[in-house]
Amino acid sequence: MRQTFDETTTPAFGREHAPLIRQAMAAQGLDGFVIPHEDEHQNEYLPAANDRLAWATGFTGSAGAAVLFKDKAAIFVDGRYALQVRDQVDTQLFEVRDLVEGGVPAYLQSEAEVGWTIGYDPRLHSPEALDRLKSAAAKAGAALKPVAPNPLDTAWGQARPAQPLAPVSPHPAAFSGEDSTEKRERIGKSLAEQGADAALITAPSSVAWLFNVRGGDVIRSPLPLSQTILNADGTARLFLDPAKVTPELPAWLGNGVRLESPDALPEALAELKGQRVLVDPGQSSAWYFEQLKDAGAQVVRGADPTALPRACKNAVEVEGTRQAHIRDGAALTSFLHWVATEAPESLPDETDVVRKLEGFRENTGALKDLSFDTIAGAASNGAIVHYRPTKRLAKRLERGSLLLVDSGAQYLDGTTDVTRTVAIGTPTAEMAERFTLVLKGHLALARVRFPAGTTGSALDVLARMPLWMAGLDFDHGTGHGVGSYLGVHEGPQRISKLPNSVALRAGMIVSNEPGYYKEGGYGIRIENLQVVTPAAPIPGGERDMLGFETLTLAPIDRTLIVVSLLTAEERAQMDAYHARVLSLIGPLVEPTVRAWLEQVCAPL
Amino acid sequence: MRQTFDETTTPAFGREHAPLIRQAMAAQGLDGFVIPHEDEHQNEYLPAANDRLAWATGFTGSAGAAVLFKDKAAIFVDGRYALQVRDQVDTQLFEVRDLVEGGVPAYLQSEAEVGWTIGYDPRLHSPEALDRLKSAAAKAGAALKPVAPNPLDTAWGQARPAQPLAPVSPHPAAFSGEDSTEKRERIGKSLAEQGADAALITAPSSVAWLFNVRGGDVIRSPLPLSQTILNADGTARLFLDPAKVTPELPAWLGNGVRLESPDALPEALAELKGQRVLVDPGQSSAWYFEQLKDAGAQVVRGADPTALPRACKNAVEVEGTRQAHIRDGAALTSFLHWVATEAPESLPDETDVVRKLEGFRENTGALKDLSFDTIAGAASNGAIVHYRPTKRLAKRLERGSLLLVDSGAQYLDGTTDVTRTVAIGTPTAEMAERFTLVLKGHLALARVRFPAGTTGSALDVLARMPLWMAGLDFDHGTGHGVGSYLGVHEGPQRISKLPNSVALRAGMIVSNEPGYYKEGGYGIRIENLQVVTPAAPIPGGERDMLGFETLTLAPIDRTLIVVSLLTAEERAQMDAYHARVLSLIGPLVEPTVRAWLEQVCAPL
Repeated sequence: MRQTFDETTTPAFGREHAPLIRQAMAAQGLDGFVIPHEDEHQNEYLPAANDRLAWATGFTGSAGAAVLFKDKAAIFVDGRYALQVRDQVDTQLFEVRDLVEGGVPAYLQSEAEVGWTIGYDPRLHSPEALDRLKSAAAKAGAALKPVAPNPLDTAWGQARPAQPLAPVSPHPAAFSGEDSTEKRERIGKSLAEQGADAALITAPSSVAWLFNVRGGDVIRSPLPLSQTILNADGTARLFLDPAKVTPELPAWLGNGVRLESPDALPEALAELKGQRVLVDPGQSSAWYFEQLKDAGAQVVRGADPTALPRACKNAVEVEGTRQAHIRDGAALTSFLHWVATEAPESLPDETDVVRKLEGFRENTGALKDLSFDTIAGAASNGAIVHYRPTKRLAKRLERGSLLLVDSGAQYLDGTTDVTRTVAIGTPTAEMAERFTLVLKGHLALARVRFPAGTTGSALDVLARMPLWMAGLDFDHGTGHGVGSYLGVHEGPQRISKLPNSVALRAGMIVSNEPGYYKEGGYGIRIENLQVVTPAAPIPGGERDMLGFETLTLAPIDRTLIVVSLLTAEERAQMDAYHARVLSLIGPLVEPTVRAWLEQVCAPL
Repeated sequence: MRQTFDETTTPAFGREHAPLIRQAMAAQGLDGFVIPHEDEHQNEYLPAANDRLAWATGFTGSAGAAVLFKDKAAIFVDGRYALQVRDQVDTQLFEVRDLVEGGVPAYLQSEAEVGWTIGYDPRLHSPEALDRLKSAAAKAGAALKPVAPNPLDTAWGQARPAQPLAPVSPHPAAFSGEDSTEKRERIGKSLAEQGADAALITAPSSVAWLFNVRGGDVIRSPLPLSQTILNADGTARLFLDPAKVTPELPAWLGNGVRLESPDALPEALAELKGQRVLVDPGQSSAWYFEQLKDAGAQVVRGADPTALPRACKNAVEVEGTRQAHIRDGAALTSFLHWVATEAPESLPDETDVVRKLEGFRENTGALKDLSFDTIAGAASNGAIVHYRPTKRLAKRLERGSLLLVDSGAQYLDGTTDVTRTVAIGTPTAEMAERFTLVLKGHLALARVRFPAGTTGSALDVLARMPLWMAGLDFDHGTGHGVGSYLGVHEGPQRISKLPNSVALRAGMIVSNEPGYYKEGGYGIRIENLQVVTPAAPIPGGERDMLGFETLTLAPIDRTLIVVSLLTAEERAQMDAYHARVLSLIGPLVEPTVRAWLEQVCAPL
C-alpha cells in the first residue's frame, strides 16, 4: 500500500514543541517567530524534514502559517481547514485565525508590541509576502528580522528527519517529446527577449521539466529538490546533491549542463554580479532576491520562464496522457463496478475503498505513485472538501447515501485526477437533482468553444450557473492545471472565480470539477481532466475557436441523473461521452465488468 | 431636432491646422506634441471647445490620440474606428496606428529622436498614462516636457469656441432619493476610513451626483464642468463658474458647501498642504497630482469615492428609472410599430428613422435630451459598430435586410439605452439563426442568478457562448453601467471579457447587449438595461443570490427568432418578457399600436 491511514501528528505536538522553539528564539533574542507552511522549494507537498508547521502545531493541511510570540501564539488556516485545524491543534495554545481575512499581517499589526524583534527564515517567504509582514510589523512598532539558523530547526534538532535524497533519473523523449537542449535554447531565447542574461529557477517541477529528469524527494510528485541557473544561450548550472545523481544522469544532461552540489549555489549566485537575472517572486523566496542583490546582480522580476511552455503540452505529451487516461480509466471502471456490485452488500469503510482502488491501479503494472492521497468520502464525510480518510475518521458506506472518490495516479506517460460520486443503494430525489445540476455545469464547461485569449476565469461561470439558478454554489475552484508525470496541480492557468490573466492555450490540461456539498449530509463532485485543443471547424463559423477534449474515461453514475432536467443537447453530450467510454475502456476490462459497463453506458 | 446629420470636420482639418500647431510648437521649442482625445474633465463627451483631436486631425471618434512631430505625425485609434479614421483623416499627413497595440508609447519609442523635447499638456493626461509616455520617450533618448499654454490652443486661437456656461440647477430629492448632506457625510466618513482628510473630485458626473445638481456643459449628459474638494467632515468647496450659478443654487447647496470660482482652485489646492488627499489617478489628470505634490499635500491614490455609491442606485432612483423605461418603452414601441408597418413600404433613409424615433420621444413631453446620438444602421451600415448616420453616409432601408437602432433618452427620473434589430421585409435564414444566437446569450445574461462578489467579467461568457459554439463572436463589451439622469456610460462595473474586479451589487444598472456583425452585410444587437436586485428566494436554495430585473420594455422582433433553436426555458423566458411588455406598455400606446403589440407579444 502506498497510502496510509495513520495520523502523523497529534494536538500534543504544540504543547511539546512550542516551548523548545521559544527556547531557541530566546537564545537568538527574538520576541516572535513566523512559521509558514511553505518550505525552501515552495512545493505543494513537503518532505517530512520540511513540514515545520506540522511539527510546531500538529496541523497537516496544505496551506497555513503560525506565529509564535513569547507569550501567545496563533495558527492561520483558510475556510477549507476550519474544522480540521480544531481537530489537530491544541487551541488553548494556538488561537485559530483566518489565513485570508487579515491573515498573519493583521495579527502582527495588532498583537506585536513596540520594540519587539520578530524573526523569519528568509528561505521560506516570497518577497511579496515578506513586504506585507514587514509593513504590518512596522505599524506595531516592531521589527522583522531575518535569522539563521531557523530556531524551529534548532529546536527540532536530532529528531528532524533527514533531507530526502531520492535518485534523479532521465525522463525519456518518448514521454517528454522535446529534448532538453531544445527546451533550454527555446527558454534561453525567451530570456534574451525579456532583456535577461539568465534565469534563476527554483521550482523543482520547472527543473524536472527543463532537464527532462524526474526524482522522488516528495511523495505523490516525481520531483527532484534542486535549483538551476539557466543562461540565455541555453547552457545551465544544475544544483543537485551528488547522492541523487544516478550513473546515467551526466551523459543525459550533456555538455551544456554543469552538475554541481547545492553547496555551490551561494557562490554561483555571487558570480552573477552585473548580470540581469530573471527570478519569479511568486516561486522563489526572498533569500534568493537578497543573495542576488548583495551580489550586485540586476534582478528582473517575472514569471518562471518554464511555466507557460511546460503548461502547453506537446503532441507526445498529449498522446501520452491520453494513454495514461485509458489505462487509468480501465482501473477506475473496474473499481466502480466493484462499488456498484459488491460495496452495497458489504458496506466497507472508506479505507477499504481506498485500498481497493489502489489495488486496481497497481494491477496496471504501470503505477509509479498516486498523484495525491485518495479522498473517499462516504455520506457526510463527502461534504468535507479536503477530507482524507484516516483510521480514526473513516466511515463505513451507507445505503441511501453517496460515496465521493477523488483520486489520481502518476504514470510515466501522464498524470491523472478524477472524481466520481456514486449512489450506494437508492439515492434521495434531492441527491439526484443536485447531482444533475453539478453535471449540467460540468457538461457546459466540457463542450464550450472559445476564442484565443479566453481565460479560465471567464469560463468559470459555466460550471456554476445551474447551481446558482437553484440558489446553490460550491466553495472551491472549478479547475486546475495538471502536469505530465509531474505535479497534479500546475499553473499558470486555472478555472476559477478569482481573476487570472493567463489565457487557455492548446495543449493545456485542466480539471473540470464542479461540486455541491451538503454539510453533515453528502458531497457531490464530478471531475474529468480535459485538454485544450483547436476546435474542429464549425459550418458557418467565422473565427478559429479552441475547445476541450475530455481525457478522463469512466462512467458517470446514471442512477443520479434526472434526465428530465437535461436539455436535448446535454443528453446527447452525455450519451456521446458514455459511448466513448464504452468503446475505449470496454475492451480493456474483464467480461463481467464489460457487461456492466455496457449497461451503465447505454443512452440515457 | 436634437440630433443633426452634418459632419463637423473634414480631412482638410489636418492640412489646415497641423501647420499652425507646429508653428506654436516651434515657438515653444518643441520637437513634438502629444494630443489626447481626453480633455481636462476626462469625460466621454467633450464640449466643442475641448475637442482638440478633432480640430487637429478631423477624427471625431470617442477615443484616440495623435502625435505631431516636426516632420511627421500619427493618429491612434482602436479597432472600432479603423474604417472611420480613414474616412475622416488625411492619411498622407497622419499615419494611422493602433491605439491599443503599442499605441502612443511605442510610437514615441521608435520615432522620437535623441535629444528631442516632446511637449504635453499635463491637464489632459492621467498620471499612469503619462508614466508610460515618459518611459517610452526616455528609451528613445527624448524628453517629455509639460507645457503651458497648450500650443494647440494657441494655434486654435480666436477660432476656438468658448467654454460652455450652461446653468447648474438643483436635482430634486424626488429623483435623487438622498440629500446631498447625507451623501457628503457618508462619503466623508469613507474618506476617514481610508485614512484621507479630503478628496479632490474632478469628474463632473461625481460632482453632479454628490451635490444633487445637473448642468448642461456637454451634449447628451446633464453635466456641470466643475471640481470639488470634499472634506472628511462632509463639508466641501465647489468650484463652479459664477455664470453657471442659478439663483436657487446657493440655498440648495446649503451652509456646508462653499461656492467658488474655478480661478480659486489652484490656491485651494495649495491650502491642502500637510493633508492626506484622496485623488483618483484614473479620473484626475497629472496636473492635479503635481499641484498637490508641489503644495506639500500627501496624495492618497484611490478610486473616486463617489463612484461606487453613485453606481448603487437607491430605491427612489430605481423606481425613477423604472418609470423612465416605461415612458421610453411606449415611445419606442410606437416607433417599432411605424418601422414594422410603414417603413417597409416607404423605405426611408436612416436619418428619417432617427427623426421619427426622436419625435416619439419628444411626444412624451419629458425628454430632456438624447442620452447619445441615435445609431440607425440599415443593412451593411448596421455592421459598423460605431456608426452614426450623416447626410453623406445615410442609407435607405432595404427589404430583405435588417435595421439596427441603438438609442436612448435622458429624463429627469432616469437614463435609457436600448437596441432593437428588426427585419425589413423577410429576413434570410442566416439572419434569423444568428439573431437567435444573440438572443440566447442575451436571455442567459438576463436570467442568471449569482452570489455576492460576482463581477461582470465572470458573467460575460453567458452572453457569448451560443455565438462561440457556432464559431462566431462580437468585438465589443457586453454591458456598461448607466447613470440616473447622468452619463449613459458609467463605471465602475462593466460586463466584459476584460478583467474587472468590481463586484455587481444591488442597485447597479448595466446594459446587456450582445451582438453579431457581418461586415458588408448586416448588424445585430439586442440591448436591454437591467438592474441588479436581490433574487427572490429559491425553493431549496441555500444561499442569498443576486439577479437582474429587466428595465427596458419593448418587443423583440419575433420574425427573427428561430423558435426551434430555443430551449423550453428560453422560450418561456421570452414569452414572459413579452407578456410584461404588453401589460406595461399596451395601456400607454394608441389603439392601432396596441393591437399590433398584442400580436408581436403573443407567446412564440
